[in-house]
Amino acid sequence: MKDLLAQFNKAFESKARLNIMSVLMVNDSMSFNAFKELLGLTDGNLATHLRALEESGYVSVQKQFIGRKPNTTYSTTDTGRQAFADHLNALEEFIRNM
Amino acid sequence: MKDLLAQFNKAFESKARLNIMSVLMVNDSMSFNAFKELLGLTDGNLATHLRALEESGYVSVQKQFIGRKPNTTYSTTDTGRQAFADHLNALEEFIRNM
Repeated sequence: MKDLLAQFNKAFESKARLNIMSVLMVNDSMSFNAFKELLGLTDGNLATHLRALEESGYVSVQKQFIGRKPNTTYSTTDTGRQAFADHLNALEEFIRNM
Repeated sequence: MKDLLAQFNKAFESKARLNIMSVLMVNDSMSFNAFKELLGLTDGNLATHLRALEESGYVSVQKQFIGRKPNTTYSTTDTGRQAFADHLNALEEFIRNM
């Protein structure tokens, strides 16, 4: 079988991760709380997906304080943007061949 | 956030299930062993994905004997074909909006 999904990236398999990456493609950075509100995910669920993307090297984390409050924001890395673009291309090719 | 992935179907989230469904969209039926060879999955992994698709009502199972050998084949259901088409449309819309 010609593997149309050869470039399918399991790091982006879930709906949550597709959404997280799409948000970060159009926003330079996004805070944990803004993500939570936007995507309607629980803390635990969101943290798990963000950590997985961070461990893949696709998302970077910035921890800082605003006054005395910790504020964690997330951005895509160059590698992450390229990997996500490759993944979308693989999906597009797959759909076109159906 | 406008949910572009509202029609995203978690039953088709994995690469394996996308491949299984795409094979069944163009073949009336496929045997377990042919699937295994085609997709390069282990028995356990393939069986798990097929069972999940069966439990969703997207794939039906036919068990018969060829001579004395049991032969299990799989087909899509009408519901499965529609759900898969909806899923691909949701992905296509998502990609187009990136």
